[in-house]
Amino acid sequence: MVCRSGLDPVDGALRRATPSATDERVRSVLGIVSSRLPPAAFLVGSDVGDGYRGDATDEKGALPPVVLRPATTDELSLILSACNDLRQPLVLQGGRTGLAGGARPMEGELSLSLERMKRLSPVNVDAATIVAEAGVTLQEVQAAANEAGFFFGVDIGARGSCTIGGNVATNAGGIRVLRYGMFRAQVAGVEAVLADGSVLSSLKGLPKDNSGLDLNHLFIGSEGVLGIVSKACLKLWPKPVTEANALCVVPSIDAAQDLLVRLRQSLGSLLSAFEILFPEVYAGIARGGFAAPPLPLPVTGGYYILTEIQGQTGDSDRERFSEALMDALDDGLASDVVVSQSSRDFEGLWRLREASNSFIFSLSNVVGFDVSVPAASMARFLDRAAASVRAIDRHAETYIFGHLGDGNLHYMVRSPEHDALADAVLTAAAEAGGSISAEHGIGLDKKPWLSLVRSPAELAAMRRLKRAFDPHSILNPGRVFDLEPSHAGEKVCP
Amino acid sequence: MVCRSGLDPVDGALRRATPSATDERVRSVLGIVSSRLPPAAFLVGSDVGDGYRGDATDEKGALPPVVLRPATTDELSLILSACNDLRQPLVLQGGRTGLAGGARPMEGELSLSLERMKRLSPVNVDAATIVAEAGVTLQEVQAAANEAGFFFGVDIGARGSCTIGGNVATNAGGIRVLRYGMFRAQVAGVEAVLADGSVLSSLKGLPKDNSGLDLNHLFIGSEGVLGIVSKACLKLWPKPVTEANALCVVPSIDAAQDLLVRLRQSLGSLLSAFEILFPEVYAGIARGGFAAPPLPLPVTGGYYILTEIQGQTGDSDRERFSEALMDALDDGLASDVVVSQSSRDFEGLWRLREASNSFIFSLSNVVGFDVSVPAASMARFLDRAAASVRAIDRHAETYIFGHLGDGNLHYMVRSPEHDALADAVLTAAAEAGGSISAEHGIGLDKKPWLSLVRSPAELAAMRRLKRAFDPHSILNPGRVFDLEPSHAGEKVCP
Repeated sequence: MVCRSGLDPVDGALRRATPSATDERVRSVLGIVSSRLPPAAFLVGSDVGDGYRGDATDEKGALPPVVLRPATTDELSLILSACNDLRQPLVLQGGRTGLAGGARPMEGELSLSLERMKRLSPVNVDAATIVAEAGVTLQEVQAAANEAGFFFGVDIGARGSCTIGGNVATNAGGIRVLRYGMFRAQVAGVEAVLADGSVLSSLKGLPKDNSGLDLNHLFIGSEGVLGIVSKACLKLWPKPVTEANALCVVPSIDAAQDLLVRLRQSLGSLLSAFEILFPEVYAGIARGGFAAPPLPLPVTGGYYILTEIQGQTGDSDRERFSEALMDALDDGLASDVVVSQSSRDFEGLWRLREASNSFIFSLSNVVGFDVSVPAASMARFLDRAAASVRAIDRHAETYIFGHLGDGNLHYMVRSPEHDALADAVLTAAAEAGGSISAEHGIGLDKKPWLSLVRSPAELAAMRRLKRAFDPHSILNPGRVFDLEPSHAGEKVCP
Repeated sequence: MVCRSGLDPVDGALRRATPSATDERVRSVLGIVSSRLPPAAFLVGSDVGDGYRGDATDEKGALPPVVLRPATTDELSLILSACNDLRQPLVLQGGRTGLAGGARPMEGELSLSLERMKRLSPVNVDAATIVAEAGVTLQEVQAAANEAGFFFGVDIGARGSCTIGGNVATNAGGIRVLRYGMFRAQVAGVEAVLADGSVLSSLKGLPKDNSGLDLNHLFIGSEGVLGIVSKACLKLWPKPVTEANALCVVPSIDAAQDLLVRLRQSLGSLLSAFEILFPEVYAGIARGGFAAPPLPLPVTGGYYILTEIQGQTGDSDRERFSEALMDALDDGLASDVVVSQSSRDFEGLWRLREASNSFIFSLSNVVGFDVSVPAASMARFLDRAAASVRAIDRHAETYIFGHLGDGNLHYMVRSPEHDALADAVLTAAAEAGGSISAEHGIGLDKKPWLSLVRSPAELAAMRRLKRAFDPHSILNPGRVFDLEPSHAGEKVCP
């Protein structure tokens, strides 16, 4: 049964990579995998590049001795079944663009990368769906939808490298949630593989199906702790006929919220994005040259709103957008507005929004939080968080930007006091009735604060799910929550 | 601790209702409940009305000896904890309007009714949400939304008696799924109580929250087998400025589908309903006088489409609707069209659609199926199902109507051969890549056919969930699936 050809050199490479006697288990996994799957299905020792040590966060983890790289669901199932039998823990890796450390390997883990599962079905025009394997990038799905005359509802900065498996597993959000919803709302069905290798397939993409328990939603946003999303059937939307965006300056966060309410009322479902750059972020982009000069609006000390519409009826949509913005200007909700007049303007304004990431990444010693807060308590949250930050480090610099249309702010602080700041900002978000992780997930890095927003009963329910679906805890162990509630990593809400 | 007052009369009533020695367990449950909760929290013996014997299907179950009726989440938790400790099985009852027998009591079960949990929060205008307890009716939510200037996205015929707990637990659908989605899409969060009495509360209603595993979706559409939905935070939509509907006659099912594609393209998100009455249903309504004469269009032998728009921009929406329908008429997609010109017309056309239910309920010996099928295989499904029905009973009469916009048809057959017909019609739906229960759920009545559309791995995953959340199987036991796969109730796909 077991084909030995190719095993010895692999074994030799592995012995050099993991020479200790405790690695017998790794060698057993590799023995099974190398005897049953082609050589491309695994990387060993020096073939494992440094990129497998983590995600888009600065902190890197252990270099995994082996990267398992299935190309099909059957290969994935075989790998999982072997690892489950041998109790071999795995870190799951997609595009490794996460911001919560979920894909950062811990000592003793092998990497399971979905990077070779790259098949993308043709668009099903009747059903307005497309089926993608886990390793297909978001950009590839967007392009395929576009080519078939459709639109995909989620967009995030990492579109070129993030992958559908990770997008589903982390319930990615991004810039158009207020129109299209989170990634969860784009999913018509998933194929998932459990730790024991069993495959759950639900790719029919029916808009209505109450035939037994829904299993799709178990895996959406699960961060890989319950099973591995190997394929997803994704919903597509009609391609917009009109797209336009605008940059506005508003004097305060209250004015920004008033402008949002106004645009929602006057534009309804035309409104597709409502992003904010706080004054310090816009000034930083200008100062550092992160967007091509001249900037569309001068640096004023105000708050900058990038808003967008997508419509189906052409010029009349564009007119409604301009009118709504001019009314806001007349009524003093905004002090200045520039509306895109060409696709070049349109792209330019979006690049300005994306420049906020480049600006933030250029700074050293920054700790970032991804919070969401109900509109009614936004101002209170910002005041309390600012006061707490000042109390911890009066030299701290705060840079805030993000998706105000969803109440979701990326709250970045430049200061060495990372842990104390996390306690302060995340507690303020929790006390405001908000989320400590609106779209980035919990992974390893936000786990200590999860109990600020989830009750002991909820955490116990998460553990029930983990034990039911991954009883030997081989899938992303220790991510999101620990199996034992008394673990030191779980803080008690102050 | 235990207050004995009131227990003895209760105990006496129960002894009369369930005199056997095996009912010691029921008396123990009632002992705990009657000592800790007010008398309104339970009905015993002759106080238990016949309505508790079932749902909206003809078949009635055992009369439960006790109906447990908590008024608050705390009371519900106490009741569940007691029943779990004593291993007392419960049938869960909301508005008892289901069509799959899920709320039909089996021998030995007590009823747990949510009918006294009736609190409805004020609308949260900032967040566009409302929080309802399980026993609030759908119509009460619709009315509260309307009063606050919002719209609730789901409507079904049972609106006046079905309740939010049941709507969430069965993922109700109805007439506007193509615009607003199923009930699942209306839920911003739930409070659920597990079999052991622990309460999982997620009622913040944040549009973006990836803080740990989502637990809401576990309970949506779970038909009560994993926990009890005690409250739901529901999303509201902007109230439409324009509503209009129209009745069209089309010559064939293919033409009906072409009309749907055409209206989707020309009306986009304006389109809010697309319902069909097959020729035999329209003729039956006319013949039986189930709609007030004169009917808006004569009986022609064609297929009747009731379609609706909801818009935000007034007369221009109405004009687009009329133009799209006139174009369809000009192009021969429809042979006759009548568009509502007043709210009286509008209501009248909807009453005509609802008359299909009255007509069907007036017939004896009818077995009904609630299937959905992908658009591309709809014609094939209808041909195959019709041939199979004829082969089983050449005198069978078939009546079809429903939500063609979602591929969801209510397929009703008048014939004594209920089981053979179920095998035939549900197999045809499954072979067409469809669902054997699009919106009604599985309950007791569709359970034998679940394995036509769900794999052994999926059924095993459902059992894992059941064992994890209700290890003593006290919540709706035997509904949806059996705990043991070899159970005779589970058919093998032919």
